[in-house]
Amino acid sequence: MKIAILGTGMVGDALGTRLVQLGHEVTMGSRTAANEKAVRWAKPLGQTARTATFRDAAAFAEIVISCTSGTHSMEALQMVGAEPLRGKILIDVSNPLQQEKDGGMILAFCNTDSLGEQIQKAFPWTRVIKALNTVNCEIMIEPSRVPGDHNLFICGNDAAAKKEVIKYLAQWFGWKPDNIIDLGDITAARGTEMMMPLWMRLFQGVIGHPHFNYHIVRGN
Amino acid sequence: MKIAILGTGMVGDALGTRLVQLGHEVTMGSRTAANEKAVRWAKPLGQTARTATFRDAAAFAEIVISCTSGTHSMEALQMVGAEPLRGKILIDVSNPLQQEKDGGMILAFCNTDSLGEQIQKAFPWTRVIKALNTVNCEIMIEPSRVPGDHNLFICGNDAAAKKEVIKYLAQWFGWKPDNIIDLGDITAARGTEMMMPLWMRLFQGVIGHPHFNYHIVRGN
Repeated sequence: MKIAILGTGMVGDALGTRLVQLGHEVTMGSRTAANEKAVRWAKPLGQTARTATFRDAAAFAEIVISCTSGTHSMEALQMVGAEPLRGKILIDVSNPLQQEKDGGMILAFCNTDSLGEQIQKAFPWTRVIKALNTVNCEIMIEPSRVPGDHNLFICGNDAAAKKEVIKYLAQWFGWKPDNIIDLGDITAARGTEMMMPLWMRLFQGVIGHPHFNYHIVRGN
Repeated sequence: MKIAILGTGMVGDALGTRLVQLGHEVTMGSRTAANEKAVRWAKPLGQTARTATFRDAAAFAEIVISCTSGTHSMEALQMVGAEPLRGKILIDVSNPLQQEKDGGMILAFCNTDSLGEQIQKAFPWTRVIKALNTVNCEIMIEPSRVPGDHNLFICGNDAAAKKEVIKYLAQWFGWKPDNIIDLGDITAARGTEMMMPLWMRLFQGVIGHPHFNYHIVRGN
Protein backbone atom coordinates (compact mmCIF):
# COMPACT_ATOMS: atom_id res chain seq x y z
CA MET A 1 0.00 0.00 0.00
CA LYS A 2 1.01 3.60 -0.51
CA ILE A 3 0.91 5.31 2.86
CA ALA A 4 1.61 8.92 3.83
CA ILE A 5 2.99 9.73 7.26
CA LEU A 6 2.51 13.41 8.01
CA GLY A 7 4.98 14.45 10.70
CA THR A 8 8.61 13.72 11.47
CA GLY A 9 8.41 13.22 15.22
CA MET A 10 8.85 9.98 17.15
CA VAL A 11 5.31 8.81 16.29
CA GLY A 12 5.80 9.29 12.54
CA ASP A 13 9.20 7.68 12.77
CA ALA A 14 7.90 4.59 14.58
CA LEU A 15 4.80 4.10 12.43
CA GLY A 16 6.67 4.79 9.20
CA THR A 17 9.50 2.41 10.00
CA ARG A 18 7.13 -0.42 10.88
CA LEU A 19 5.08 0.12 7.73
CA VAL A 20 8.17 0.09 5.50
CA GLN A 21 9.35 -3.09 7.22
CA LEU A 22 5.98 -4.64 6.38
CA GLY A 23 6.57 -3.92 2.67
CA HIS A 24 4.48 -0.77 2.22
CA GLU A 25 5.56 2.29 0.26
CA VAL A 26 5.74 5.04 2.82
CA THR A 27 6.27 8.74 2.21
CA MET A 28 7.03 10.94 5.19
CA GLY A 29 5.62 14.40 4.64
CA SER A 30 6.84 17.62 6.16
CA ARG A 31 7.04 21.32 5.28
CA THR A 32 9.88 20.71 2.86
CA ALA A 33 10.68 17.60 0.83
CA ALA A 34 14.25 17.58 2.12
CA ASN A 35 13.41 17.93 5.81
CA GLU A 36 16.44 16.78 7.73
CA LYS A 37 14.61 14.48 10.14
CA ALA A 38 12.60 12.91 7.32
CA VAL A 39 15.71 12.27 5.25
CA ARG A 40 17.46 10.76 8.25
CA TRP A 41 14.41 8.50 8.78
CA ALA A 42 14.25 7.37 5.15
CA LYS A 43 17.94 6.74 4.49
CA PRO A 44 18.46 3.36 6.21
CA LEU A 45 15.07 2.01 5.08
CA GLY A 46 15.69 1.71 1.36
CA GLN A 47 13.72 2.66 -1.73
CA THR A 48 10.22 2.25 -0.31
CA ALA A 49 10.81 4.99 2.26
CA ARG A 50 10.59 8.44 0.69
CA THR A 51 10.27 12.02 1.78
CA ALA A 52 8.07 14.75 0.31
CA THR A 53 6.12 17.86 1.18
CA PHE A 54 2.93 17.35 3.19
CA ARG A 55 0.98 17.85 -0.03
CA ASP A 56 2.95 15.48 -2.23
CA ALA A 57 3.05 12.81 0.46
CA ALA A 58 -0.75 12.90 0.81
CA ALA A 59 -1.33 13.06 -2.94
CA PHE A 60 0.84 9.97 -3.47
CA ALA A 61 -0.89 7.93 -0.77
CA GLU A 62 -3.93 5.69 -0.61
CA ILE A 63 -4.16 6.28 3.14
CA VAL A 64 -2.87 9.17 5.24
CA ILE A 65 -1.69 9.04 8.84
CA SER A 66 -1.65 12.43 10.54
CA CYS A 67 0.91 12.45 13.33
CA THR A 68 2.22 15.98 13.39
CA SER A 69 2.28 17.66 16.79
CA GLY A 70 -1.41 18.15 17.57
CA THR A 71 -1.37 21.93 17.79
CA HIS A 72 0.10 22.07 14.25
CA SER A 73 -1.92 19.32 12.57
CA MET A 74 -4.51 21.67 11.09
CA GLU A 75 -1.81 23.89 9.61
CA ALA A 76 -0.07 20.89 8.03
CA LEU A 77 -3.34 19.64 6.57
CA GLN A 78 -4.18 23.08 5.20
CA MET A 79 -0.85 22.87 3.36
CA VAL A 80 -2.09 19.62 1.81
CA GLY A 81 -5.44 21.07 0.79
CA ALA A 82 -8.71 19.25 0.21
CA GLU A 83 -8.06 17.56 -3.16
CA PRO A 84 -5.18 15.21 -2.23
CA LEU A 85 -7.26 14.03 0.74
CA ARG A 86 -10.59 13.60 -1.05
CA GLY A 87 -12.21 10.21 -0.44
CA LYS A 88 -9.21 8.91 1.48
CA ILE A 89 -8.99 7.51 4.97
CA LEU A 90 -7.02 9.80 7.28
CA ILE A 91 -6.01 8.31 10.62
CA ASP A 92 -5.54 11.10 13.16
CA VAL A 93 -3.11 9.94 15.83
CA SER A 94 -2.28 13.30 17.44
CA ASN A 95 -3.30 15.02 20.66
CA PRO A 96 -3.40 18.84 20.80
CA LEU A 97 -0.97 19.05 23.70
CA GLN A 98 0.42 22.43 24.59
CA GLN A 99 2.97 23.46 27.20
CA GLU A 100 1.83 25.94 29.82
CA LYS A 101 4.02 28.74 31.10
CA ASP A 102 4.69 26.74 34.29
CA GLY A 103 5.91 23.76 32.24
CA GLY A 104 2.74 21.68 32.68
CA MET A 105 0.96 20.17 29.69
CA ILE A 106 -2.61 21.08 28.84
CA LEU A 107 -4.81 20.53 25.80
CA ALA A 108 -5.01 23.52 23.44
CA PHE A 109 -8.74 22.79 23.10
CA CYS A 110 -11.05 20.07 24.43
CA ASN A 111 -14.44 19.31 25.98
CA THR A 112 -16.59 20.97 23.29
CA ASP A 113 -14.09 20.36 20.49
CA SER A 114 -11.33 17.98 19.48
CA LEU A 115 -8.63 17.68 16.86
CA GLY A 116 -10.43 14.78 15.22
CA GLU A 117 -13.55 16.89 14.81
CA GLN A 118 -11.63 19.90 13.53
CA ILE A 119 -10.03 17.79 10.81
CA GLN A 120 -13.34 16.17 9.80
CA LYS A 121 -15.05 19.58 9.69
CA ALA A 122 -12.30 21.14 7.56
CA PHE A 123 -12.13 18.12 5.21
CA PRO A 124 -15.70 16.87 4.86
CA TRP A 125 -14.81 14.57 1.92
CA THR A 126 -12.08 12.82 3.86
CA ARG A 127 -12.88 9.78 6.01
CA VAL A 128 -11.33 10.85 9.31
CA ILE A 129 -10.66 8.15 11.89
CA LYS A 130 -9.29 8.97 15.33
CA ALA A 131 -7.18 6.11 16.64
CA LEU A 132 -3.96 5.18 18.45
CA ASN A 133 -3.78 8.52 20.31
CA THR A 134 -4.19 6.98 23.77
CA VAL A 135 -0.96 4.95 23.70
CA ASN A 136 2.74 5.62 23.31
CA CYS A 137 4.13 5.01 19.82
CA GLU A 138 6.01 1.89 20.85
CA ILE A 139 2.74 0.38 22.07
CA MET A 140 0.98 1.52 18.87
CA ILE A 141 3.22 -0.67 16.73
CA GLU A 142 3.73 -3.50 19.22
CA PRO A 143 0.76 -3.88 21.57
CA SER A 144 2.19 -7.12 22.95
CA ARG A 145 4.70 -4.98 24.89
CA VAL A 146 1.81 -4.66 27.36
CA PRO A 147 0.74 -8.11 28.57
CA GLY A 148 -2.73 -9.57 28.17
CA ASP A 149 -5.80 -7.74 26.93
CA HIS A 150 -5.88 -3.96 26.73
CA ASN A 151 -7.83 -1.59 24.55
CA LEU A 152 -7.52 0.82 21.71
CA PHE A 153 -10.30 3.31 21.00
CA ILE A 154 -11.45 4.24 17.54
CA CYS A 155 -14.05 6.72 16.32
CA GLY A 156 -15.18 8.34 13.11
CA ASN A 157 -18.30 9.08 11.09
CA ASP A 158 -17.68 6.49 8.35
CA ALA A 159 -18.48 2.96 9.55
CA ALA A 160 -16.83 1.26 6.55
CA ALA A 161 -13.64 3.28 7.05
CA LYS A 162 -13.57 2.28 10.73
CA LYS A 163 -13.85 -1.40 9.77
CA GLU A 164 -11.00 -0.97 7.32
CA VAL A 165 -8.78 0.77 9.89
CA ILE A 166 -9.48 -1.94 12.47
CA LYS A 167 -8.31 -4.46 9.87
CA TYR A 168 -5.12 -2.44 9.24
CA LEU A 169 -4.38 -2.05 12.94
CA ALA A 170 -4.59 -5.82 13.26
CA GLN A 171 -2.50 -6.55 10.14
CA TRP A 172 0.11 -3.87 10.60
CA PHE A 173 0.67 -3.86 14.33
CA GLY A 174 -1.04 -6.93 15.79
CA TRP A 175 -3.94 -5.26 17.61
CA LYS A 176 -6.65 -7.84 18.30
CA PRO A 177 -9.86 -6.55 16.68
CA ASP A 178 -11.78 -7.61 19.82
CA ASN A 179 -9.65 -5.19 21.81
CA ILE A 180 -10.43 -2.21 19.57
CA ILE A 181 -13.45 -0.35 20.92
CA ASP A 182 -15.56 1.63 18.45
CA LEU A 183 -16.77 4.68 20.39
CA GLY A 184 -19.03 6.00 17.62
CA ASP A 185 -18.80 9.19 15.60
CA ILE A 186 -15.83 11.55 15.45
CA THR A 187 -17.03 13.66 18.41
CA ALA A 188 -15.87 10.77 20.61
CA ALA A 189 -12.36 12.07 19.88
CA ARG A 190 -13.07 14.54 22.69
CA GLY A 191 -13.09 11.61 25.10
CA THR A 192 -9.88 9.99 23.91
CA GLU A 193 -7.93 13.25 23.60
CA MET A 194 -9.07 14.21 27.10
CA MET A 195 -7.41 11.10 28.51
CA MET A 196 -4.05 12.79 28.00
CA PRO A 197 -3.85 14.52 31.40
CA LEU A 198 -4.35 11.18 33.19
CA TRP A 199 -1.94 9.49 30.78
CA MET A 200 0.74 12.12 31.51
CA ARG A 201 0.34 11.62 35.28
CA LEU A 202 0.58 7.86 34.95
CA PHE A 203 3.62 8.22 32.68
CA GLN A 204 5.53 10.82 34.67
CA GLY A 205 4.37 10.39 38.24
CA VAL A 206 3.27 6.81 38.72
CA ILE A 207 4.71 4.32 36.25
CA GLY A 208 7.80 6.20 35.05
CA HIS A 209 7.72 4.84 31.50
CA PRO A 210 5.17 5.02 28.67
CA HIS A 211 4.61 1.29 28.18
CA PHE A 212 1.17 0.87 29.69
CA ASN A 213 -2.39 0.89 28.48
CA TYR A 214 -6.01 0.90 29.62
CA HIS A 215 -8.09 -2.23 29.75
CA ILE A 216 -11.82 -1.71 30.07
CA VAL A 217 -13.07 -4.43 32.41
CA ARG A 218 -16.78 -5.15 32.28
CA GLY A 219 -19.03 -6.38 35.03
CA ASN A 220 -22.70 -7.12 34.57
CA MET B 1 -17.25 7.10 62.63
CA LYS B 2 -19.32 10.20 62.12
CA ILE B 3 -19.60 10.79 58.37
CA ALA B 4 -21.30 13.56 56.41
CA ILE B 5 -22.68 12.85 52.97
CA LEU B 6 -23.29 16.12 51.12
CA GLY B 7 -25.83 15.51 48.36
CA THR B 8 -29.02 13.53 48.01
CA GLY B 9 -28.50 12.02 44.56
CA MET B 10 -27.85 8.37 43.72
CA VAL B 11 -24.18 8.64 44.72
CA GLY B 12 -24.97 10.05 48.18
CA ASP B 13 -27.72 7.49 48.60
CA ALA B 14 -25.47 4.55 47.72
CA LEU B 15 -22.47 5.66 49.79
CA GLY B 16 -24.64 6.72 52.75
CA THR B 17 -26.57 3.47 52.83
CA ARG B 18 -23.43 1.34 52.73
CA LEU B 19 -21.78 3.38 55.49
CA VAL B 20 -24.83 3.10 57.76
CA GLN B 21 -24.93 -0.64 57.13
CA LEU B 22 -21.29 -0.80 58.24
CA GLY B 23 -22.23 0.79 61.55
CA HIS B 24 -21.21 4.39 60.98
CA GLU B 25 -23.25 7.43 61.99
CA VAL B 26 -24.13 9.11 58.73
CA THR B 27 -25.77 12.49 58.21
CA MET B 28 -27.01 13.36 54.75
CA GLY B 29 -26.71 17.09 54.17
CA SER B 30 -28.77 19.20 51.83
CA ARG B 31 -30.09 22.75 51.58
CA THR B 32 -32.77 22.08 54.19
CA ALA B 33 -32.69 19.61 57.08
CA ALA B 34 -36.02 18.16 56.02
CA ASN B 35 -35.14 17.63 52.35
CA GLU B 36 -37.60 15.08 51.01
CA LYS B 37 -35.05 12.84 49.31
CA ALA B 38 -32.78 12.87 52.36
CA VAL B 39 -35.67 11.99 54.69
CA ARG B 40 -36.73 9.18 52.36
CA TRP B 41 -33.13 7.89 52.38
CA ALA B 42 -32.81 8.00 56.17
CA LYS B 43 -36.16 6.52 57.15
CA PRO B 44 -35.57 2.79 56.56
CA LEU B 45 -32.00 2.90 57.89
CA GLY B 46 -32.69 3.55 61.57
CA GLN B 47 -31.24 5.92 64.13
CA THR B 48 -27.70 6.16 62.73
CA ALA B 49 -28.96 7.72 59.49
CA ARG B 50 -29.86 11.37 59.96
CA THR B 51 -30.57 14.41 57.81
CA ALA B 52 -29.36 17.97 58.32
CA THR B 53 -28.40 21.11 56.48
CA PHE B 54 -25.11 21.01 54.57
CA ARG B 55 -23.56 22.99 57.39
CA ASP B 56 -24.84 20.91 60.29
CA ALA B 57 -24.00 17.66 58.52
CA ALA B 58 -20.39 18.77 58.00
CA ALA B 59 -20.08 20.20 61.49
CA PHE B 60 -21.23 16.93 63.02
CA ALA B 61 -18.85 14.78 60.99
CA GLU B 62 -15.26 13.60 61.35
CA ILE B 63 -15.06 13.09 57.60
CA VAL B 64 -17.03 14.70 54.80
CA ILE B 65 -17.94 13.15 51.45
CA SER B 66 -18.91 15.72 48.82
CA CYS B 67 -21.21 14.13 46.25
CA THR B 68 -23.52 16.92 45.22
CA SER B 69 -23.90 17.41 41.49
CA GLY B 70 -20.50 18.73 40.42
CA THR B 71 -21.66 22.07 39.10
CA HIS B 72 -23.27 22.82 42.49
CA SER B 73 -20.61 21.42 44.82
CA MET B 74 -18.90 24.76 45.40
CA GLU B 75 -22.20 26.42 46.27
CA ALA B 76 -23.06 23.66 48.74
CA LEU B 77 -19.64 23.94 50.37
CA GLN B 78 -19.94 27.72 50.61
CA MET B 79 -23.14 27.08 52.60
CA VAL B 80 -21.06 24.98 54.99
CA GLY B 81 -18.34 27.59 55.35
CA ALA B 82 -14.71 27.08 56.30
CA GLU B 83 -15.01 26.37 60.04
CA PRO B 84 -16.99 23.10 60.01
CA LEU B 85 -14.52 21.75 57.43
CA ARG B 86 -11.30 22.90 59.10
CA GLY B 87 -8.71 20.14 59.43
CA LYS B 88 -11.10 17.48 58.16
CA ILE B 89 -10.71 15.10 55.26
CA LEU B 90 -13.16 15.90 52.47
CA ILE B 91 -13.52 13.25 49.78
CA ASP B 92 -14.68 14.90 46.55
CA VAL B 93 -16.51 12.31 44.46
CA SER B 94 -18.24 14.63 41.96
CA ASN B 95 -17.61 15.54 38.34
CA PRO B 96 -18.65 18.98 37.06
CA LEU B 97 -20.90 17.58 34.34
CA GLN B 98 -23.19 19.97 32.54
CA GLN B 99 -25.80 19.36 29.88
CA GLU B 100 -25.34 21.18 26.59
CA LYS B 101 -28.22 22.67 24.62
CA ASP B 102 -28.09 19.72 22.20
CA GLY B 103 -28.44 17.25 25.10
CA GLY B 104 -24.79 16.19 25.15
CA MET B 105 -22.78 16.23 28.36
CA ILE B 106 -19.68 18.37 28.76
CA LEU B 107 -17.59 19.45 31.72
CA ALA B 108 -18.40 22.92 33.07
CA PHE B 109 -14.64 23.48 33.43
CA CYS B 110 -11.57 21.31 32.87
CA ASN B 111 -8.04 21.17 31.46
CA THR B 112 -6.60 24.12 33.44
CA ASP B 113 -8.94 23.65 36.39
CA SER B 114 -10.92 20.96 38.19
CA LEU B 115 -13.52 20.67 40.91
CA GLY B 116 -11.01 19.06 43.25
CA GLU B 117 -8.69 22.04 42.88
CA GLN B 118 -11.49 24.57 43.28
CA ILE B 119 -12.51 22.98 46.58
CA GLN B 120 -8.92 22.80 47.85
CA LYS B 121 -8.31 26.43 46.88
CA ALA B 122 -11.49 27.67 48.57
CA PHE B 123 -10.87 25.59 51.73
CA PRO B 124 -7.11 25.62 52.27
CA TRP B 125 -7.43 24.17 55.79
CA THR B 126 -9.41 21.17 54.59
CA ARG B 127 -7.65 18.01 53.42
CA VAL B 128 -9.27 17.54 50.03
CA ILE B 129 -8.96 14.11 48.39
CA LYS B 130 -10.35 13.43 44.94
CA ALA B 131 -11.46 9.81 44.64
CA LEU B 132 -14.16 7.48 43.34
CA ASN B 133 -15.24 9.89 40.59
CA THR B 134 -14.24 7.59 37.73
CA VAL B 135 -16.69 4.80 38.55
CA ASN B 136 -20.45 4.42 38.86
CA CYS B 137 -21.76 4.49 42.45
CA GLU B 138 -22.57 0.78 42.48
CA ILE B 139 -18.95 0.04 41.62
CA MET B 140 -17.78 2.56 44.24
CA ILE B 141 -19.35 0.53 47.04
CA GLU B 142 -18.87 -2.93 45.54
CA PRO B 143 -15.80 -3.07 43.28
CA SER B 144 -16.15 -6.86 42.99
CA ARG B 145 -19.08 -6.25 40.61
CA VAL B 146 -16.30 -5.82 38.04
CA PRO B 147 -14.19 -9.00 37.86
CA GLY B 148 -10.46 -9.18 38.52
CA ASP B 149 -8.15 -6.23 39.02
CA HIS B 150 -9.20 -2.72 38.08
CA ASN B 151 -8.16 0.67 39.37
CA LEU B 152 -9.30 3.60 41.38
CA PHE B 153 -7.45 6.91 41.18
CA ILE B 154 -6.79 9.14 44.14
CA CYS B 155 -5.11 12.50 44.45
CA GLY B 156 -4.64 15.28 46.97
CA ASN B 157 -2.01 17.48 48.53
CA ASP B 158 -1.95 15.76 51.94
CA ALA B 159 -0.08 12.45 51.83
CA ALA B 160 -1.29 11.31 55.25
CA ALA B 161 -4.91 12.03 54.33
CA LYS B 162 -4.51 10.01 51.12
CA LYS B 163 -3.20 7.05 53.11
CA GLU B 164 -6.16 7.32 55.46
CA VAL B 165 -8.66 7.47 52.60
CA ILE B 166 -7.07 4.45 50.91
CA LYS B 167 -7.57 2.58 54.20
CA TYR B 168 -11.23 3.66 54.34
CA LEU B 169 -11.87 2.68 50.73
CA ALA B 170 -10.53 -0.76 51.54
CA GLN B 171 -12.44 -1.12 54.84
CA TRP B 172 -15.73 0.39 53.70
CA PHE B 173 -16.07 -0.89 50.18
CA GLY B 174 -13.47 -3.58 49.61
CA TRP B 175 -11.11 -1.74 47.26
CA LYS B 176 -7.72 -3.47 47.25
CA PRO B 177 -5.11 -0.87 48.25
CA ASP B 178 -2.83 -2.19 45.49
CA ASN B 179 -5.49 -1.23 42.95
CA ILE B 180 -5.74 2.37 44.18
CA ILE B 181 -3.36 4.56 42.18
CA ASP B 182 -2.04 7.72 43.86
CA LEU B 183 -1.70 10.27 41.04
CA GLY B 184 -0.08 12.96 43.18
CA ASP B 185 -1.35 16.39 44.17
CA ILE B 186 -4.89 17.69 43.75
CA THR B 187 -4.24 19.08 40.25
CA ALA B 188 -4.37 15.45 39.06
CA ALA B 189 -8.15 15.79 39.53
CA ARG B 190 -8.07 17.41 36.07
CA GLY B 191 -7.07 14.06 34.66
CA THR B 192 -9.70 11.97 36.43
CA GLU B 193 -12.54 14.45 35.85
CA MET B 194 -11.57 14.60 32.16
CA MET B 195 -12.16 10.85 31.85
CA MET B 196 -15.89 11.53 31.96
CA PRO B 197 -16.43 12.05 28.21
CA LEU B 198 -14.88 8.64 27.47
CA TRP B 199 -16.79 7.10 30.38
CA MET B 200 -20.09 8.47 29.04
CA ARG B 201 -19.39 7.03 25.58
CA LEU B 202 -18.51 3.64 27.02
CA PHE B 203 -21.62 3.73 29.22
CA GLN B 204 -24.12 4.91 26.65
CA GLY B 205 -22.73 3.82 23.31
CA VAL B 206 -20.59 0.75 23.87
CA ILE B 207 -21.33 -1.20 27.05
CA GLY B 208 -24.88 -0.07 27.77
CA HIS B 209 -24.58 -0.22 31.55
CA PRO B 210 -22.33 1.54 34.08
CA HIS B 211 -20.70 -1.53 35.62
CA PHE B 212 -17.23 -1.31 34.14
CA ASN B 213 -13.90 0.14 35.12
CA TYR B 214 -10.39 0.88 33.88
CA HIS B 215 -7.46 -1.38 34.59
CA ILE B 216 -4.05 0.12 33.95
CA VAL B 217 -1.95 -2.67 32.47
CA ARG B 218 1.81 -2.18 32.64
CA GLY B 219 4.45 -3.46 30.27
CA ASN B 220 8.13 -2.86 30.76
